[in-house]
Amino acid sequence: MDVASVVNMLIHHLGADRVLTEKEDILPYGFDGTATLKQLPACVCFPRDAKDVAVAIKLASEQKLPVVTRGSGTGLSGGSVPIAGSLVLCLAKMDRIIEVDTANLTLRAEAGVITQKVYAAADAVGLFYPPDPGSMKISTIGGNVAENSGGLRGLKYGVTRDYVMGLEVVLADGSICRLGSKCVKDVAGYNLRDLFIGSEGTLGVVTQVILKLLPKPAARQTLLATFTAMDAAAAAVSAIIAAKIIPCTLEFLDQKTLRCVEDYANVGLPRDAAAVLLIEADGHAAAVDEDASKIEELCWIHDASSVRLAADADEAVQLATARRSAFSALARIRPTTILEDVTVPRSELVGMIRAVEQIAKKHNLNIATFGHFGDGNLHPTILTDELDSEEMHRVEAAIVDIVQETLDRGGTITGEHGVGLAKKPFLQHQLGDNSYDLLRLVKRAIDPQGLLNPGKIFD
Amino acid sequence: MDVASVVNMLIHHLGADRVLTEKEDILPYGFDGTATLKQLPACVCFPRDAKDVAVAIKLASEQKLPVVTRGSGTGLSGGSVPIAGSLVLCLAKMDRIIEVDTANLTLRAEAGVITQKVYAAADAVGLFYPPDPGSMKISTIGGNVAENSGGLRGLKYGVTRDYVMGLEVVLADGSICRLGSKCVKDVAGYNLRDLFIGSEGTLGVVTQVILKLLPKPAARQTLLATFTAMDAAAAAVSAIIAAKIIPCTLEFLDQKTLRCVEDYANVGLPRDAAAVLLIEADGHAAAVDEDASKIEELCWIHDASSVRLAADADEAVQLATARRSAFSALARIRPTTILEDVTVPRSELVGMIRAVEQIAKKHNLNIATFGHFGDGNLHPTILTDELDSEEMHRVEAAIVDIVQETLDRGGTITGEHGVGLAKKPFLQHQLGDNSYDLLRLVKRAIDPQGLLNPGKIFD
Repeated sequence: MDVASVVNMLIHHLGADRVLTEKEDILPYGFDGTATLKQLPACVCFPRDAKDVAVAIKLASEQKLPVVTRGSGTGLSGGSVPIAGSLVLCLAKMDRIIEVDTANLTLRAEAGVITQKVYAAADAVGLFYPPDPGSMKISTIGGNVAENSGGLRGLKYGVTRDYVMGLEVVLADGSICRLGSKCVKDVAGYNLRDLFIGSEGTLGVVTQVILKLLPKPAARQTLLATFTAMDAAAAAVSAIIAAKIIPCTLEFLDQKTLRCVEDYANVGLPRDAAAVLLIEADGHAAAVDEDASKIEELCWIHDASSVRLAADADEAVQLATARRSAFSALARIRPTTILEDVTVPRSELVGMIRAVEQIAKKHNLNIATFGHFGDGNLHPTILTDELDSEEMHRVEAAIVDIVQETLDRGGTITGEHGVGLAKKPFLQHQLGDNSYDLLRLVKRAIDPQGLLNPGKIFD
Repeated sequence: MDVASVVNMLIHHLGADRVLTEKEDILPYGFDGTATLKQLPACVCFPRDAKDVAVAIKLASEQKLPVVTRGSGTGLSGGSVPIAGSLVLCLAKMDRIIEVDTANLTLRAEAGVITQKVYAAADAVGLFYPPDPGSMKISTIGGNVAENSGGLRGLKYGVTRDYVMGLEVVLADGSICRLGSKCVKDVAGYNLRDLFIGSEGTLGVVTQVILKLLPKPAARQTLLATFTAMDAAAAAVSAIIAAKIIPCTLEFLDQKTLRCVEDYANVGLPRDAAAVLLIEADGHAAAVDEDASKIEELCWIHDASSVRLAADADEAVQLATARRSAFSALARIRPTTILEDVTVPRSELVGMIRAVEQIAKKHNLNIATFGHFGDGNLHPTILTDELDSEEMHRVEAAIVDIVQETLDRGGTITGEHGVGLAKKPFLQHQLGDNSYDLLRLVKRAIDPQGLLNPGKIFD
């Protein structure tokens, strides 16, 4: 492994300003948004396009340097944390929106475009890019594709995958592939596009995306309801779904979370409530009005202690603040915040929340839970201190219990954050040996040298 | 290759009534819905479940018998036409709907369930399974998954893939894998589920599916508009999309097709019209009313010669008959009907229709065109006679021209019928060498012996 020769060749191809090797320069690229994980790479470079990526991959391949791709580094499972001695490809400077095609309702962008800019470019022409991961103001669309990021609108609108029509991908041998197209229907050959979406940089490097856009919903209505029991909140959610209403947002906070949020943001939540639901309906104005009335009624029927309907857009933003600030509010409590991402079928969600409370008690830990009630994706958040090794042992034991409980309920170890390093120990248990072996077979076939983001998802 | 030993072992495992070898018995399994393709297999068997499929695959593998899976055999690209000496797995008797889960809006079914029954089971509890391939009254859900079938609702609701949450799949080594789950969000490991969807039985045998259901739209409105020029119809479609209306159905017939339909079904279409649009809006009643009024207005603005708005459900069905009977009407004209399936970005559709007319003239052929205006998926239908070898040469030349025109416009050789045997010669041209090589690499990795449906998609 001759790092110096790779660095020299990269400088020759990309220019010295696009290659970093000094410790103080590469320090910011040694971690992502995941607690407790960090590792410096050997070198960081900034490609301009797919051809640059291909050159960098070929150089790394010749010297057997592992390649780790990243955007803004907001990942929550360690997917873009470097491997020792690796070359980091940072695509943040490939940040052009190439085309907004209003006739075909598509948008083509380079991988490094910030997701919020994708949303804004669509919005500017009356269109709508629905996926809204919590990180969207700073995360890149390429990172969203690599992790198949979710967000608050999953129940009605799905996740990143549901909006990706085409990809440009660079493979481990440096070849450039185009997968998918602008065609709404396309069944020519295997769907490799969807294989690369969510593959966390382990099969290839996504350099461009073609995204599907929707017409912007004409109206939106936001409600915030509080309940004195989580079971009542759950019953309200079940009743909403049974009434054939699919809200675009259906979020919850448990008591611990809402108290932290109230201390932090002072939004007027009752501290004795056991659960808060944030519900948004969108679509045609008449449909939204009807849905919002029905939702309000169903919350009252199911023993809500309060229901607030936003009078205007400003109040809607204010109500949403309670949910949007949950993670920041929790992160102030203890030095280390470990955000879990287990997901169960919606009907299992209340039982799962209760189980997490029991697990917190059993291991004497501070765990607050919030998340996406509509799609069963919950974020038990462990408030701890990574320097306290005794407590960290209990944290690890609690995570094992949470995972087991999730799998017993037909759930998944990760709904939207990815496997990366954080969930790697649990993947085989979830998938079973046959499916797990198939994953590894596909990895070996597409990246036989194990060059791309090795050690992520599986060993 | 010892066919007799495989047959004996299959009879031992499945029972004699589930294994066919006599020519008169296996004759119906020697073709699918594709013109001009047929081939008898060595044997046909009817597994009861995934374990039976695994046993059959292992037996075939030991004797190197190719395995071809089929449902009802309605495919239109030859994907389930047997290979000489093959074992056909017919899953038509695995036809149980296992669960309709109204809390999680999912349905679990065996692969052999008729798609119409899936629709009906959802409908019975107020839910909606949107994909509606033309064959849905006789095709199986497993076949739909294998081909990633489309239908008339693609623009608004997507295709089969968009409703598959989980699969049970038997691999070439007989191992049984579960891919995906009931979770709305699930990013645990590579998305192999979507790799198997649309893989036409070449990577594994789909034995069970978990499908996503939606609430049933509350209202629906159907319009039929005629135009004296295809360009006017196209301008109306563009105006509808520009008005941010996404109809669930946006279909067209050209003049040749509408005249055939009129001769066949007497629905009152003007024979001098150049184009017919069938448009359906669905959703909340107020939204549908507004959309339908706006659509009607936009058709008139763009020089429609007539616009009929269905007064009730019966009239809606009557209007839809024009489109639904297109293929049957055309199939009466000449002995052989070759249904093409090229798809372009919607903005290219008019140019593509005109190009097909030119190609018909150039090769002196009778080609009528109808299809899905909303999603750019058109079905140029060549009315010919497979016994006339001189004409068939011209047909082949015309298909080559149609494919080239499609690819020049950023389109795909197949929007919803699959590659199978019919489109195999054109796939590499569309994908380019890198993506094509990647497809073959994945096939070799997952089915190293080339046991499953060999010779389909690629050689």
